[in-house]
Amino acid sequence: MADTYVLVHGAWHTGAEMEDVAGVLREAGHAVHCPTLVGNRAGDDRSRVGLADAIDSAVRFIEEKDLTEVRLAGHSYGGMVISGVADRIAHRLKRLVYVNAFVPLDGESLNDMVPPQYVAMFDAVAGANGNAVSLPFEVWREAFINDADLALAQASYELLNPQPYRTFTDKIRLREPLAALQLGKSYVNCQQDTAMPHSLPWHPRLSERLGLFRLVECPGSHEMFFSNPGRLAQAILEAGRD
Amino acid sequence: MADTYVLVHGAWHTGAEMEDVAGVLREAGHAVHCPTLVGNRAGDDRSRVGLADAIDSAVRFIEEKDLTEVRLAGHSYGGMVISGVADRIAHRLKRLVYVNAFVPLDGESLNDMVPPQYVAMFDAVAGANGNAVSLPFEVWREAFINDADLALAQASYELLNPQPYRTFTDKIRLREPLAALQLGKSYVNCQQDTAMPHSLPWHPRLSERLGLFRLVECPGSHEMFFSNPGRLAQAILEAGRD
Amino acid sequence: MADTYVLVHGAWHTGAEMEDVAGVLREAGHAVHCPTLVGNRAGDDRSRVGLADAIDSAVRFIEEKDLTEVRLAGHSYGGMVISGVADRIAHRLKRLVYVNAFVPLDGESLNDMVPPQYVAMFDAVAGANGNAVSLPFEVWREAFINDADLALAQASYELLNPQPYRTFTDKIRLREPLAALQLGKSYVNCQQDTAMPHSLPWHPRLSERLGLFRLVECPGSHEMFFSNPGRLAQAILEAGRD
Repeated sequence: MADTYVLVHGAWHTGAEMEDVAGVLREAGHAVHCPTLVGNRAGDDRSRVGLADAIDSAVRFIEEKDLTEVRLAGHSYGGMVISGVADRIAHRLKRLVYVNAFVPLDGESLNDMVPPQYVAMFDAVAGANGNAVSLPFEVWREAFINDADLALAQASYELLNPQPYRTFTDKIRLREPLAALQLGKSYVNCQQDTAMPHSLPWHPRLSERLGLFRLVECPGSHEMFFSNPGRLAQAILEAGRD
Repeated sequence: MADTYVLVHGAWHTGAEMEDVAGVLREAGHAVHCPTLVGNRAGDDRSRVGLADAIDSAVRFIEEKDLTEVRLAGHSYGGMVISGVADRIAHRLKRLVYVNAFVPLDGESLNDMVPPQYVAMFDAVAGANGNAVSLPFEVWREAFINDADLALAQASYELLNPQPYRTFTDKIRLREPLAALQLGKSYVNCQQDTAMPHSLPWHPRLSERLGLFRLVECPGSHEMFFSNPGRLAQAILEAGRD
Repeated sequence: MADTYVLVHGAWHTGAEMEDVAGVLREAGHAVHCPTLVGNRAGDDRSRVGLADAIDSAVRFIEEKDLTEVRLAGHSYGGMVISGVADRIAHRLKRLVYVNAFVPLDGESLNDMVPPQYVAMFDAVAGANGNAVSLPFEVWREAFINDADLALAQASYELLNPQPYRTFTDKIRLREPLAALQLGKSYVNCQQDTAMPHSLPWHPRLSERLGLFRLVECPGSHEMFFSNPGRLAQAILEAGRD
């Protein structure tokens, strides 16, 4: 049976980098959309775009295509966005799928969930780069894409685009806690993902904020969209199905 | 070399649901028994059966068949039962194998080891159902058998039987701590088992109560007896061997 | 491209037990050395050899062979040794690879990082054995090589040699924290390794002392050098590459 998936990319990415995973989902018979959020599009003013703008762009995408029964997946920062979308148009959604993604409480920003050393690094980079942030290559290579070889780490790094810092510092507004939303919820945990240190992990620290949820795990780093899209697609299918 | 296994089912189950795993163990040359505990048999008075009754029924099973050198495995609630059996007839046992199973201290009930939201849910259900408890399907599907598809989740749910609530609320009596028992001890941890939330996990929270023990892990949910009996059987063999 | 690896064994072992892993690395085109540390060589005075002696012997090995750009891997106690080597001759190293290995802070001993029950056991054994320690077979079989069958557990146990206890009790001197060293750092975590209890684990408790590091995980026990050298070699290659 054909399900409808919308895959929301993480910070520094665009929808294009979701396409390898999307292709596997399509081969399994599903309709898959990979929008690029406002803030990560060519020509965006990265000094000004905020979290609400990004959420708005995702809501508009779903409404303009008149999608319903959506299985809405978000990767990393994409978790902030799908949480905001669910707060706005839950009636169009069937299930939320967080892929090592942030699960905010009302009034929290992404920066409220990351270790202080990241916030300090982001503050410094944003201050010197027109309020946009990027990752040093060494952090990308060692902590984000630790399961790839150097060539893939370099090639994927070249694809990244600067992230508007307001999307990390803006507080989200949620009318009710995500745990109370009457939607299916799943969390895909890539087991060697050290983008969050394992002493302050994605799962169960953030996943359990969903209340009743389905856990799916797979071996791999934070960047399996690059390093192992086939295996990640399998996990997303197990997370997204009824 | 032929070993003797007794597999003790969890709450809501019977011995019949252990048979797929038992079959793999038999193919490996072992003798395997899958008794159904008092409390989970057709016709049992589920308002009255308590933990000691269930333990008694397992002890009688082993004694009546005159089994010795038993590798006694318990799943989930079955951990309460095999702990009580070990306290009574350790001389008939070779090794205890806990399969994401409760490991009690003297004077503890199963309910003492689960999150408060489960206790509240069980209290409410038992109050309305003659002191027997069952799981809502959504909890079963998302948190117990998260690695199955919907059809298997539904089919397995149909096999469950109501659990006498006294088996969850009765305190166990153990003459000495399990860690002090001169028996082999193993713990099989199914890695995506969220029947206990991973913030209050089976392993190492409960497993380490065994003192020196052997850890075996496998990918899968709390209900691998349904979702992947072959892989679970392999883990039980690695846990049960000398 | 050919890399240079030096594999530093753990307590009770010698370089010979690293050879199966080394062979896989050599097949992949690399130069691999497996020295035996002072303290674990035939004829060593195990009552006297201390941690600094073992570190000295590893430094001398690298200097005498004039090795550079070394990927220096240490297993278990070997982590104490490679940490000391890095503090002395970082200019000869390219990357440190800890394989479920101790990561000390300045002024710490190995015993400072293990559970108190181990220290008590070691104290008793050393007191009765000329200040050398060994492991009881049951601890080896259940907690160190839990993924092997009994025959391999026994055969590997026969290969162990008594460990000079001063290598566990001597404090290490580090001029700067390992996290500050300008070297690549990786941590290989064997997921069923219960040589450290999982309530006081290798990773992330000790791994995160490295600062920015690359995590690689594989299924297996503390003694994969015996139980699954091929899989461990793959993990070391993913940890050791640029």
